[in-house]
Amino acid sequence: MTASALDRRYMAAAIRLARWHEGRTGSNPSVATLIVREVDGANVIVGRGVTAIGGRPHAEAQALAEAGDLARGATAYVTLEPCAHHGRTPPCAEALVTSGIARVVAAATDPDERVSGRGYAILRAAGIEVEEGVLAAEAERGLAGYLTRRMKNRTHVTLKLAVSANGKIGRRDGEQVLITGEVSRNQVHALRALSDVILIGAGTAINDDPELTCRLPGLQDRSPIRLVLDTHLRLPLGSRLVRSAREVPLWIATAAAQDDPRRAELAACGAEFIASDAHDGRLALPELLEDLAARGLSTVFVEGGAAVAHAFLAEGLVDRLVLLTGPSDIDGDAVDAPVTRLTVPSAFRPVASMICGDDRIDEYERV
Amino acid sequence: MTASALDRRYMAAAIRLARWHEGRTGSNPSVATLIVREVDGANVIVGRGVTAIGGRPHAEAQALAEAGDLARGATAYVTLEPCAHHGRTPPCAEALVTSGIARVVAAATDPDERVSGRGYAILRAAGIEVEEGVLAAEAERGLAGYLTRRMKNRTHVTLKLAVSANGKIGRRDGEQVLITGEVSRNQVHALRALSDVILIGAGTAINDDPELTCRLPGLQDRSPIRLVLDTHLRLPLGSRLVRSAREVPLWIATAAAQDDPRRAELAACGAEFIASDAHDGRLALPELLEDLAARGLSTVFVEGGAAVAHAFLAEGLVDRLVLLTGPSDIDGDAVDAPVTRLTVPSAFRPVASMICGDDRIDEYERV
Repeated sequence: MTASALDRRYMAAAIRLARWHEGRTGSNPSVATLIVREVDGANVIVGRGVTAIGGRPHAEAQALAEAGDLARGATAYVTLEPCAHHGRTPPCAEALVTSGIARVVAAATDPDERVSGRGYAILRAAGIEVEEGVLAAEAERGLAGYLTRRMKNRTHVTLKLAVSANGKIGRRDGEQVLITGEVSRNQVHALRALSDVILIGAGTAINDDPELTCRLPGLQDRSPIRLVLDTHLRLPLGSRLVRSAREVPLWIATAAAQDDPRRAELAACGAEFIASDAHDGRLALPELLEDLAARGLSTVFVEGGAAVAHAFLAEGLVDRLVLLTGPSDIDGDAVDAPVTRLTVPSAFRPVASMICGDDRIDEYERV
Repeated sequence: MTASALDRRYMAAAIRLARWHEGRTGSNPSVATLIVREVDGANVIVGRGVTAIGGRPHAEAQALAEAGDLARGATAYVTLEPCAHHGRTPPCAEALVTSGIARVVAAATDPDERVSGRGYAILRAAGIEVEEGVLAAEAERGLAGYLTRRMKNRTHVTLKLAVSANGKIGRRDGEQVLITGEVSRNQVHALRALSDVILIGAGTAINDDPELTCRLPGLQDRSPIRLVLDTHLRLPLGSRLVRSAREVPLWIATAAAQDDPRRAELAACGAEFIASDAHDGRLALPELLEDLAARGLSTVFVEGGAAVAHAFLAEGLVDRLVLLTGPSDIDGDAVDAPVTRLTVPSAFRPVASMICGDDRIDEYERV
C-alpha cells in the first residue's frame, strides 16, 4: 500500500467519524480529526476527535488532547481545513502547530473567508507538510449543509418524494395511501434526524395531519424544527403539529398580517413565526432559505406535498433528491409525481441506491 | 432651509421610524424608508415603511406600496443602503428603480458583501441621484447589532452596570441591595426589550434568582432569550429562570460533559444548551459571541455580575456601556464596580445622559 492509499484510508475513516454528529453541531460543521503515527513499527491512531454536540470544542482540540505527546511528529487527518481565526482559545491551525504535528492531510477547504487557505498557510509557515483535497468530494457530501450556507448564504435543501410504481404520489381526493413500507419509513426518520429543519406545505399539514418527528428508538430527542409554509395561516390548532409544538419546535412561515388573530392563537400553543415575503400569493422560497441560514440552520428536508416539491424544483433550490419508489400502483384519479426515477433532471447525478424491503431508495445530488 | 438641512430632517425622522422594530426583525436589520415629494407646492411624506416584525417584508417595499404612483419623481430616504441581491422578490434597489424614484438619500452603507456599494450602483446605473452617508453615524447607532454581526462576525455587546454613589455594585456577603429606583429599573426593562439576548453569570443567577424578563406593560411578549454562563451547570432547577423556561427561552452556555445528568434535568424543564469552549476554567467569550451571531442574534445585553462584567471589559468585547448611578452608598464590605462614571476607559465616549428619579443613567460607546 502506498502512502497515498494509506492517507485515503485514514481519511475515509475520519469522514465516517465526522458523520457521527451530523445535524447536532449547531451552526458549526461536524468535522473529524484522526492523529496517526508509527508506534513500534505499526501505524496507530493515537488521537481522534469529532466536533462536540452543540459545535464546541472542535475536533482538532479533542484529538490533540487524546494524543498528548504522541502528537509530536505524527500525521493529522482533518476532514475540513483547520480554523484560522482567533478567539479566546487558539485557532485549530495554531493548536496543530504547537502540538508538534509533522504532517496534515486535509479533505475539504473551508469557504469561510476567515479561514479559507489561511488555515493551510499557518501550518505551512510552521514547516508542517500539508496535503490538501484528499477525498474532498466525499468529505464535502457530509459538509454540504455548512458549505451551502457559507457559499450561497442559504440552507441546503434535500427533497424527499415517495412515488408509486406507476409514478404517482397520492390520490387527488386526498385519501391517504401508503406508498412505501416500514423499512423505508425508518430510513426517512433517520434522514429527518440528520436535518436541522423539516419543511412541508400547509396543504399537506392539513390533509395528512403528520407529526413529522423522528420516532426511531434512541433518536426521539433528535427531532428537528418542523417548518410549515402557511401563507394564510390555515394550520388548525388541533393538528398534531400544533399540539406537539411545546415538545418539538414548530415554525410557521407566513405572510399573514402581524395583527391576524390566528397568530396569537398559534403562538399561545408554542408555534413561532418566520415572516416571509409573498409573491403572486406564494411565499418567496429563496428569501426563506436565506433567513434560515442567517439563523445558523444548514439543512432543510422537504417532505411535500406536490406543490411545494414543484416549487423547490422549479426555482432550482433542490441540492439533493431522495426518491423512494414503492412496489404498487396508485390507481384511479392520482397525482403525478413532480419527478420519478425515469424523469430525474439532468442537473442531478445518482450518488446512491438501496433496496429497503419492497421499496427502492435512490439518492441524487445537483452536479 | 437648504435642501441639505431638509434631507437631514427627513433622515432623522426615518431613523426614529427604524427604531420602532429594533430587536424584533430577526436576523434582518430594522431599517426605515420615507418617500417624500412636492404636492401642491409643499413637501409631503407619501410613503413610509419600516422592516416588518420578523424581518420581512423590507421597508422599501412597504413605503413604495404606500406611495404608489406618487413615487414617480419623489425622493426616498433610506436608513441603510437598499439590498442588491436577488431572491424571488426583486431586490429593494431594483424596486426603487422600477417605481420611478428620482433621488435616494441614504444613511449607512450595508457591509454585507452581496450589497455593499452594489445597492447604490444599481440606483446610479438607472440614472437615480444618490446621496450617501447623510446622518450615517446616527443611523449606525440603531444598526449597531446588525453591523457588528456582519463586520466582526460576533454579536454586539451592551454592558449594563448599576453602581452606588460610592462606586460599589453590591455586598460581598451576597445580600441584595437596591442601588437604583423604579424609574431606572423601567429603563432597564425597556433596554431588555430591544435586545436579542440577556446574559448573566451563574453566580448572579444563583444569588439574585432573577427572572430577567421584560415586565413593562405592553412589552411582556418582548422578553429576549435569557442566557446564563454556567461552566459547571450550577443553576438550580427551582430558580425563577428555570421555572419560566417554557414561557421565555432560557439558554445555558456550558462546558459540562454531554452525559452530565444535570443536562437532561435542565432540558426537561425547557432549557437549551450552547456548547462552549472553556479556557482556564472560564467560558471562551469571543467564541460564544461568534456562535450567537451565527444563529442570527445581533445584540447581547450583559447584566452581571462583577466577574462577568470584568471579563467582557478585559477582553475588549464591550461595544456599549450603560452605567446607572444611584443616590446612596453601600457601606461595609462591598464589591467595587468594575467601572464607574469616574473610571470609564478612554476607549469609550459618552453619547447620552439622563436623570431618572434619583438616579443618573450614562451611556457610552466604544470609539
